[in-house]
Amino acid sequence: MNNGATDEQIDSVVNKIRSFGLDANVSRGTERTVIGAIGDERKLDPEMFDSLSGVEYSMHIVKQYKIVSRESHRHDSVIDVGGIPIGGNQVQIIGGPCSVETQEQMDLSAENVYTAGCRLMRGGAFKPRTSPYTFQGNGEEGLKMFRNAADKYNLRIVTELMDARMLDTFLKYDVDVIQIGTRSMQNFELLKEVGRINKPVILKRGMSATISEWLMAAEYIAAGGNHNIIFCERGIRTFETAYRNVLDVTCIPVLKKETHLPVIVDPSHAGGKAWMVPALARAAIAAGADGLLVETHPNPCDAWCDADQALNPQEFESLMGSLKGIAGVIGRSL
Amino acid sequence: MNNGATDEQIDSVVNKIRSFGLDANVSRGTERTVIGAIGDERKLDPEMFDSLSGVEYSMHIVKQYKIVSRESHRHDSVIDVGGIPIGGNQVQIIGGPCSVETQEQMDLSAENVYTAGCRLMRGGAFKPRTSPYTFQGNGEEGLKMFRNAADKYNLRIVTELMDARMLDTFLKYDVDVIQIGTRSMQNFELLKEVGRINKPVILKRGMSATISEWLMAAEYIAAGGNHNIIFCERGIRTFETAYRNVLDVTCIPVLKKETHLPVIVDPSHAGGKAWMVPALARAAIAAGADGLLVETHPNPCDAWCDADQALNPQEFESLMGSLKGIAGVIGRSL
Amino acid sequence: MNNGATDEQIDSVVNKIRSFGLDANVSRGTERTVIGAIGDERKLDPEMFDSLSGVEYSMHIVKQYKIVSRESHRHDSVIDVGGIPIGGNQVQIIGGPCSVETQEQMDLSAENVYTAGCRLMRGGAFKPRTSPYTFQGNGEEGLKMFRNAADKYNLRIVTELMDARMLDTFLKYDVDVIQIGTRSMQNFELLKEVGRINKPVILKRGMSATISEWLMAAEYIAAGGNHNIIFCERGIRTFETAYRNVLDVTCIPVLKKETHLPVIVDPSHAGGKAWMVPALARAAIAAGADGLLVETHPNPCDAWCDADQALNPQEFESLMGSLKGIAGVIGRSL
Amino acid sequence: MNNGATDEQIDSVVNKIRSFGLDANVSRGTERTVIGAIGDERKLDPEMFDSLSGVEYSMHIVKQYKIVSRESHRHDSVIDVGGIPIGGNQVQIIGGPCSVETQEQMDLSAENVYTAGCRLMRGGAFKPRTSPYTFQGNGEEGLKMFRNAADKYNLRIVTELMDARMLDTFLKYDVDVIQIGTRSMQNFELLKEVGRINKPVILKRGMSATISEWLMAAEYIAAGGNHNIIFCERGIRTFETAYRNVLDVTCIPVLKKETHLPVIVDPSHAGGKAWMVPALARAAIAAGADGLLVETHPNPCDAWCDADQALNPQEFESLMGSLKGIAGVIGRSL
Repeated sequence: MNNGATDEQIDSVVNKIRSFGLDANVSRGTERTVIGAIGDERKLDPEMFDSLSGVEYSMHIVKQYKIVSRESHRHDSVIDVGGIPIGGNQVQIIGGPCSVETQEQMDLSAENVYTAGCRLMRGGAFKPRTSPYTFQGNGEEGLKMFRNAADKYNLRIVTELMDARMLDTFLKYDVDVIQIGTRSMQNFELLKEVGRINKPVILKRGMSATISEWLMAAEYIAAGGNHNIIFCERGIRTFETAYRNVLDVTCIPVLKKETHLPVIVDPSHAGGKAWMVPALARAAIAAGADGLLVETHPNPCDAWCDADQALNPQEFESLMGSLKGIAGVIGRSL
Repeated sequence: MNNGATDEQIDSVVNKIRSFGLDANVSRGTERTVIGAIGDERKLDPEMFDSLSGVEYSMHIVKQYKIVSRESHRHDSVIDVGGIPIGGNQVQIIGGPCSVETQEQMDLSAENVYTAGCRLMRGGAFKPRTSPYTFQGNGEEGLKMFRNAADKYNLRIVTELMDARMLDTFLKYDVDVIQIGTRSMQNFELLKEVGRINKPVILKRGMSATISEWLMAAEYIAAGGNHNIIFCERGIRTFETAYRNVLDVTCIPVLKKETHLPVIVDPSHAGGKAWMVPALARAAIAAGADGLLVETHPNPCDAWCDADQALNPQEFESLMGSLKGIAGVIGRSL
Repeated sequence: MNNGATDEQIDSVVNKIRSFGLDANVSRGTERTVIGAIGDERKLDPEMFDSLSGVEYSMHIVKQYKIVSRESHRHDSVIDVGGIPIGGNQVQIIGGPCSVETQEQMDLSAENVYTAGCRLMRGGAFKPRTSPYTFQGNGEEGLKMFRNAADKYNLRIVTELMDARMLDTFLKYDVDVIQIGTRSMQNFELLKEVGRINKPVILKRGMSATISEWLMAAEYIAAGGNHNIIFCERGIRTFETAYRNVLDVTCIPVLKKETHLPVIVDPSHAGGKAWMVPALARAAIAAGADGLLVETHPNPCDAWCDADQALNPQEFESLMGSLKGIAGVIGRSL
Repeated sequence: MNNGATDEQIDSVVNKIRSFGLDANVSRGTERTVIGAIGDERKLDPEMFDSLSGVEYSMHIVKQYKIVSRESHRHDSVIDVGGIPIGGNQVQIIGGPCSVETQEQMDLSAENVYTAGCRLMRGGAFKPRTSPYTFQGNGEEGLKMFRNAADKYNLRIVTELMDARMLDTFLKYDVDVIQIGTRSMQNFELLKEVGRINKPVILKRGMSATISEWLMAAEYIAAGGNHNIIFCERGIRTFETAYRNVLDVTCIPVLKKETHLPVIVDPSHAGGKAWMVPALARAAIAAGADGLLVETHPNPCDAWCDADQALNPQEFESLMGSLKGIAGVIGRSL
C-alpha cells in the first residue's frame, strides 16, 4: 500500500481478496503496509488490485516467503536502531560479553566496546544453557545492569529473548534489538510475539536450519507487522568435530539474493575458540556481511561462560583495524 | 531419598550439601525424590550422606545428566499413563491423525485406532508449521474434539504443547501425555514448565540434536520434579534428500544403555511417506523401541496436513499384525 | 534384447541409435544384454525399436540410472554366488572377521560361521586404514589363507578390492564376491574394471553418498556388462558423535523401490560397537534387507583391527536365532 | 636427519628403532629425510637418538599425523612448483576451465589466465563424473592440449589424477601439480603412488572428511617421501540444499595450526554457481588461504561441464583486483 494508506483502503483490498475465497494477511510495518493474499494464486491477478485506491503496486510472489523476499522489495533494507543503521553501506560490529555478570564487568565491557569504535553492544541476561545445572543468566537484574552500562557510552543494546512472557520486561528496559537465539528460530509462538511489536529483531539461524526455513521464520515475524529483521549466521552443525560449528559464509551472498534484509554473522559461536575469531570475522566481512556479533570480555579468563571464545580488548581493537581495511576494499565503511 | 522421606529430612540433606559450598537441586517426583549436589564434586563423598535419616542411597554420577541416567536408576522405568504402561515388557502403538480436523474425523480416527488395538491416540491441536500462512491447528477447539473422541473409546491422548502459556488449557482438557515437539526440544523455559507438573511427557528429539543434548533436555524436565519422560526418535537431518529425515535406529540401544526411561519412535515423520512407514516401524520395534507414534487417518487423501504420510485403517491394522510378530520374537508383547 | 540375441542384432540396434546422433552403451550381462541410448531422448521413440529383430522390449527410462533401475526390470533380481542366492525370498547372513590374520584364526572363523548357519564368509586381506602406520592387511597371503579356510566348509568368500591392479590376483584365488568399500564407491576407474568381469559385486555406500549417487555408482558397473550387483548400507556420517555412523534403515525400502537389485546391511561398521550389532541387525532384517555382513571373531579381544565391533561365536549364534524369527514374521526364510 | 645424512646414518637410526621392537618409516623428501618410529612410544626416548650421527633432532609427536604436523616442523612450508612458490607470503590464484575441451579453448583460457596475472593453470583431462553416460574427459589427448597451451604462456599446470595406472602418462606430459580429487582423498593406493614420486600434490578434502582424516590422508603421501603437499578445501556436504556444498572457511585457520603445509580453496566447486564465487573467494583469502583454484572459461555458456560455475575473463579480472586488496590488508601479496 502507499505510505499513508487509510484503514478503509486497506479494508477494501482485504475484502476484495476474501471475495475470491482467499485469506488476507495484513502486515503493518513502520515503513509500509503489506497485504498478502493466501490461497489459490490462480484466482487473482495483480491487475485487479493496481487500480484500487491506496495501492502502490501489486505483484505475484512465487516464493513461499513473501514480505522478506527480494522479489517484494528490490532495494536493500536498512534497519534503524535508535539512529544507528544496520544494512546499507555501513558495516556494524556489535561487541560485548557472552553473559551479563556484574555491573563492573558490564561497565568495563561497554567502555572497551565503545573505545574500539562500536555503537551497539551485545550481552545475555537470559542464557539458553544445555544443562539445567549451569548458570542460567542474571535475568531482569542483568537487563538493568546492561542498560546502565550501555547508557554511559550511548550504546544500543542487543540481548536474547527466550520466553514470550518476558517481552514486557524487555520493553521496560528499552532493549534496542531483540535477539532470537538459534534454539528459538522455529519457536513460532515467540516469533509471532516479536512480530507484534516494533523493535528490531536479530534472527539467528537454527543449528541445522536450511536457508528456506530461516526465511520462513523471518516471514512469521514480518507477517505480524514487524519488518525490522536482521539475519544472523552463527555456524551450522555438521559432521566435523574439530570445531563447534561450521561458519557458513555461502549463506551471505545467497541471502543477499533472496531477501532485502541485512545479514550479520557471529564468528564467536561458530568456531568456539577466540583464536579462530579473527579469520572468521574477516571472512564474513569479505563475503559481504552487514555486521558482526563478536564476543569480547574485559578479562576472558574470568568469563562466566564461553570463556574460550571471547576476545580481550586488545585483540578486539586489532581485529577492528583489519575489518576496516577489508570493508574498504569492497567499498563499504566501518 | 526413601519413599516417604519428610520435608525435614530433605532439608537436612540440602543444608549439608550447601554447607560445603555446593548448590542443591531437589526434584520431587511421584515415585522418588532425588537431591542433586551441583558444584565441585571433589568436596563431597557419598558416605557423608548415607547415614543421614531418610536417605536411601547416595552416589557419585559422572554423567552430566543425573536423574535420567541409567547410573542413577538401574531398572527400566515404566511410565503410567492413566493405567496404561509405557516401557517395560509391553510395546504401545499410538495411532492417530497429524492434526485434529473435525469431530467426525476424530471420532472415526478414534474408532480405527481402538479397533486396531491401541490404547493411546495422537493428534495435533496446535501445529508447528514452517510457513505462517498455512493451517496452524484448531487450537483449544481441537483439544475439545480430541478429548471427546478419545473418551468414547477409553483412549489416552497425546498432543503437542508449543507454548508455556497454553499449559493450563492442556490441563483443563486433561491431556494425558504432553508432547514436546522436535523444534521445542531445547525450548528450556517450556521444559521447565512441564517439569513442574506431574504429567507424562513425550520428548521428541531435535532435528539435529545429539544424544547427549537430548538427555540434557530431559534432565531439565526431571530437575523440576517430573520424572515421567518418554524419549521419541523421529528422524534426524542429514545430507540425504531422497527422504525427509533419516530414522536413527541406533539411538534405541544407545538410549537404553544411557537412561532408564522408555524410548519410542515416530516412523511417520521420519520417512515422510506412508509407504516407508511399515518398514521403519518394524525396524524400530526390532531394535527394541518401547512403542511407536504412527500417523493414521480415516482417509489420508483428505488429511489437512502431511497427507502423504498417514496410513489408512487397513494399512495400520496390517502393520499391527507384523509388529506383534516381531515383538514376540524379542520376548515382548503388543 | 532377447536372451540369445546375436551380435548382428545388437549391432543393428546400436546403428539405429547412432543414426539419430545418440551414443549407445551396450551392457552384456549374463542374463540379458541391455542397450542404452545416451543423448537427447526426444529424438527416439520406443516403437522405433520394438520391431527390430532380437529386441525383447524397449522403453524410455526417466531416471539417470538405467540398467539398475526398477523401471528397467520389474522383478527382484537374485544374484547367484556359486549356487547360493542373494536376493529373493532367502535372507543371507555373511559372517567373518574384519581382517584375515592367521590361517588358524581363519579356520576357526570359518568353522564358527558355518556352524552358525552361514553359507558365505567375509574377511579383509587388503584393508583401507585411515593411518599409513597401522596394519594394512595380509595382502595376497591373506587371500590364500581365506580361500583355504572357506573351502574346508564350502563357504563362498567376500573380500574387498581397493586397487584395479589387484583384480587378477582376486580372480586367481577365485574370490566369489568382490566388495567395493565405502571409500571406493566413487572410484570410477575401479567400478569400470569390476564392470568388465562377471563376478558378483557388493557395492558399499559411500560415507555420505546420496541414494542417487549410489545408484549411479552401480550403473557404472552395470554399464560395463556386470549386472551382479548387491548394495550394502553401512551407516552414514552425521553430526552424532555417540556412535561411529548412523545406520540408515530408510534406504532399504527406498532402494527396493528404485532398483531390482538386492540390498544388504553391515550393522558392525555402522555402530562400531559389538553391543549395538544385534539391535541393528534385527532392525535391518525387519526393514526388508536381503542379508547382512556381520563381523565375527573366534576371540574378539585378540582381533587385529576393529576388536570392539566383532561378535564372538556365542553372540553370533544367538543373533542368528532372533534374525530367523524376524525373517519368518515377514515371510522370508533364513 | 641432517640435510645430507648418509644412507648408513639413516640405517643406523632405523636399526636402533627396530631393536626396541618398533617399526620404522623412512620418508625421504627433497628437503629432509624424516624417520618415524611406529609402535609403543613408551619404549623410546628422544634422547636416545639425538646423539646418533646424522640426526638433526628427535621428538615425540603426539598427533597421529607426524610428518605433516606443525609439531614436527614449526615454520610454514613453501612448495616450489617449477620456480613458483605456493605458501609463504605470496597468494597464488590458479585459474582455468573445468575440463580440457579443445586446443583453441585451452589456448584462449591460458591467455585469459595469464593476462589476469596467474602463474598456474587448472584443467581436467580425466573427469570423475557421477554418471557413466556423461563426458569423461579427453584423457591423454587432453593432457597434450593442456601442456601445449600452458607452455605458450609459461604457466604451470594442475590436473587431476584418478588412477594410479595413469601416473606415467602424467609424468610424460610433465604435469606440474597432481590434483587428488575429493572422491580420491581416501584412495590409499593412489596416495601411496603419488607419495613415491617427487611432484607437488594438491589434496582436495573428501566430501565429508574430517580435518583429522584429511591430515592422515596427507600423511599417506608424506610417509612415502613426497612432502610437497597442498591442502585444498572445496566445500563439505551438509543438509543445506540451496547450494552444492558449504565452503568451510574455519578449516583454514585450523589447518594452519595443525600443519606447516599450504592451504588453498576452491570456491567454484563449493558454491556451484558463478555468482557465488567472488564472495567465497574473498572470504577464503581474508581467512588466510594461500591460494585459490578458480574455474574460468573463455565463454562459460559453452563449457562442456559445470557451465554454471565458471567465471568469464572479465569477472575473473575484476575478482583478482579485490583479492589483491584483501591480501594486502592482511599483509600478503598477490
